[in-house]
Amino acid sequence: MAQASPLPRNETGIATAIGSLKQQFGDRLQTGQAIREQHGHTTTWIENQPPDAVVFPQTTEEVADIVKICAAHKVPVIPFGVGTSLEGHVNAPAGGISVDMGQMNQILAVHAEDLTCTVQPGVTREQLNTHLRDQGLFFPIDPGANASIGGMTATRASGTNAVRYGTMKDNVIALQAVMADGEIIKTAQRAKKSSAGYDLTRLLVGSEGTLGLITCITLRLHGIPEAMSAARCSFQSVEGACQAVMATIQYGIPVARIELLNALSVKAVNAYSKLDLPETTLLLLEFHGSQASVAEQAELFGQIAGDFGSTGFEWTASTEERNRLWQARHDFYWAALQLRPGAKALATDVCVPISRLAECVAAATAKAEELGLQAPLVGHVGDGNMHMSPLVDMADADEVARTEDYVGWLAELAISMDGTCTGEHGIGQGKRPYLTKELGGATRYMAAIKAALDPDNILNPGKILPG
Amino acid sequence: MAQASPLPRNETGIATAIGSLKQQFGDRLQTGQAIREQHGHTTTWIENQPPDAVVFPQTTEEVADIVKICAAHKVPVIPFGVGTSLEGHVNAPAGGISVDMGQMNQILAVHAEDLTCTVQPGVTREQLNTHLRDQGLFFPIDPGANASIGGMTATRASGTNAVRYGTMKDNVIALQAVMADGEIIKTAQRAKKSSAGYDLTRLLVGSEGTLGLITCITLRLHGIPEAMSAARCSFQSVEGACQAVMATIQYGIPVARIELLNALSVKAVNAYSKLDLPETTLLLLEFHGSQASVAEQAELFGQIAGDFGSTGFEWTASTEERNRLWQARHDFYWAALQLRPGAKALATDVCVPISRLAECVAAATAKAEELGLQAPLVGHVGDGNMHMSPLVDMADADEVARTEDYVGWLAELAISMDGTCTGEHGIGQGKRPYLTKELGGATRYMAAIKAALDPDNILNPGKILPG
Repeated sequence: MAQASPLPRNETGIATAIGSLKQQFGDRLQTGQAIREQHGHTTTWIENQPPDAVVFPQTTEEVADIVKICAAHKVPVIPFGVGTSLEGHVNAPAGGISVDMGQMNQILAVHAEDLTCTVQPGVTREQLNTHLRDQGLFFPIDPGANASIGGMTATRASGTNAVRYGTMKDNVIALQAVMADGEIIKTAQRAKKSSAGYDLTRLLVGSEGTLGLITCITLRLHGIPEAMSAARCSFQSVEGACQAVMATIQYGIPVARIELLNALSVKAVNAYSKLDLPETTLLLLEFHGSQASVAEQAELFGQIAGDFGSTGFEWTASTEERNRLWQARHDFYWAALQLRPGAKALATDVCVPISRLAECVAAATAKAEELGLQAPLVGHVGDGNMHMSPLVDMADADEVARTEDYVGWLAELAISMDGTCTGEHGIGQGKRPYLTKELGGATRYMAAIKAALDPDNILNPGKILPG
Repeated sequence: MAQASPLPRNETGIATAIGSLKQQFGDRLQTGQAIREQHGHTTTWIENQPPDAVVFPQTTEEVADIVKICAAHKVPVIPFGVGTSLEGHVNAPAGGISVDMGQMNQILAVHAEDLTCTVQPGVTREQLNTHLRDQGLFFPIDPGANASIGGMTATRASGTNAVRYGTMKDNVIALQAVMADGEIIKTAQRAKKSSAGYDLTRLLVGSEGTLGLITCITLRLHGIPEAMSAARCSFQSVEGACQAVMATIQYGIPVARIELLNALSVKAVNAYSKLDLPETTLLLLEFHGSQASVAEQAELFGQIAGDFGSTGFEWTASTEERNRLWQARHDFYWAALQLRPGAKALATDVCVPISRLAECVAAATAKAEELGLQAPLVGHVGDGNMHMSPLVDMADADEVARTEDYVGWLAELAISMDGTCTGEHGIGQGKRPYLTKELGGATRYMAAIKAALDPDNILNPGKILPG
């Protein structure tokens, strides 16, 4: 956990800024240890580096006030959604102020006729979809956790149905943000497309709070599909499963989700959920469309999967049966932890061209065995994105070191396959060592952009860019 | 045509740079007046500002050499594709060197299994699709003209089927670019998605050659659909047509193209192509999918259109009949010019939330009449993008001035409707007066990025950013 080394602190500036913020925000500024640690910790395995205070703004103007106070005293500002990030994004290596967006959780507008909505950053994914349901609409991006829309935007999140609906970069139309000097900007209008100037929307999506604090997000919505179907089948080899996936996508079947579990993952869910799936590679699929088309899609997939040696193919269009077919996926996380009670699951996040995925899975599995690591896998296989999740005894320093080696080795393997060290979790603190390995000299221009937009490096310092 | 005011020229630097380039490139550096004018002109109505020389590189390294020479002497560098841009993107208001990518026209790789390809910037859209056809693949973005992929990337182009396949921002996976200091970078790996650092890919897409010269593009491909169908119907009012479009999209019908022609456009094609369509609002649609689904889509659309008062609904799945139904659209440009032989058609390019489109079309039509302008219209109506195209007698100074007023009025109308002054053509020179009206203070941060990445302002100066 060496990635979380502290940065120099500006003690005087921090004390002064906290004094000013306390005056303006009163009880909405908190400095208790528990709340500070909670805001540094999130779901990462990286060590906790709490901020010095947590402030809870309610408006964009209040966020601007916070940033102006912090800018005046050169104090770090770290935005916080609900704390589901995985790479230490909300840690405060130089201390500073965590800006918790939890009270900015209003859905400001739904324009059903345009398939857009505008929300504050603290709105969660599930909150939004509950709100939209009566209008027959939904927001598709599903990273698993009930993340905040602001956090999902900041980390360029995606998840299981990105294969059909894209990632946050594809589903954000416009942003309002507070920049490092406290100015409030909008990055685009609400038109569905535009060629007007530099794409500041996409620059902020995935910038992890290092270029601006996102205070308002306009999203693309989708109609709830008339029908859904699900399918499940097993393969003797990862190769067969990946070939079936490639053929399915090449054929143009608009799969909504297509998830791969490795043999160890299936073993875990068999034990946890009392299932009796063959303990080999498993594919789970979901299709969206009209009644006729979801049947057609599932049946076509079944034929393709059969061509690549699948067994146990089942599909259904009923809701109850869909849940049964997908239970292995829904229970995966808890089932994986039960493989080794007390261990921590470290989610890796590489993404490679899909033609290299089978090779990547095979090598990653062999390497885990070689290092003596137990690593269940789930993959958003339609995108070439896979999460090997070694189960680590955090009290065992040698095992922690071997796991760190594994993470680095896997990142470099993906990079060698023209892939990325992070498909959807972001760089944060954890992946910083790999960004230059992946993109070389391009990181110099990222640093130039950061320096131009945040010359005092107050916005989430110590994240993304190499030190 | 006031937008093309010249900028100060660095005469000594330009002469020195041309001397150095001549040594390296020999006959691949041209300074004849005709070729220079051709490289400044393109298809815009903005006055010609030719570069001082045109150079034809064949490799990324040669592009880097050109930029290094120009950087050393602070000489403007203007990338050139095939010259189909519409807003003066390739003009040289401060003189300098046009970099013609025409000899960098190799398709470097097609990865069919990953649905990606990698091409040089001078490859044209039609060249690419001809190359891909045998593999059952295609690249969907279709701006009408046979543009170069590099130019389409640089202007964030889209066109008729963006409603289904998105714009260039959605279909570029990675870029190689030469930055203002002559360094060669790659913006991303070939994985389908990534959360690794700032999205330099999307920052360069639509940057119009002002942040870097794009030398290699990795694109997403799509399988050629198993089947296509087309449909056509008329509406008494623009409102009815727009409501039908909104309902179709909300219903989730994955329309591939949906184009609107106004009454004047229909009149033009009736005369030009000997058709007898009702001279009122016309919608043309195309659907992609399986045989069953393209029939289902067309029929569903027909029902929806009927609910909103359509007349003359026809659909077909045969190729010949599709061409017949779409003839009005294919012949539109030449038909429009025939409304007023000798006139120039000035394509405007606003894009508004689709719920405001009918109102925008109505107001734009009334204003054109008020100004005595003949303005046929086509719209990529599924995206809210419309092109009113006044036919202008360029010898009539008063009419030219009225047309300029109209362009500005329309841009501001769209902005007032939460829309954009450019849906797909870009800012170039022509739309610079409207960028700040549209995005306010955000343009300051665009300027900061430009200054950070191109401190001497040598990359396509006088474009995008307000002076």
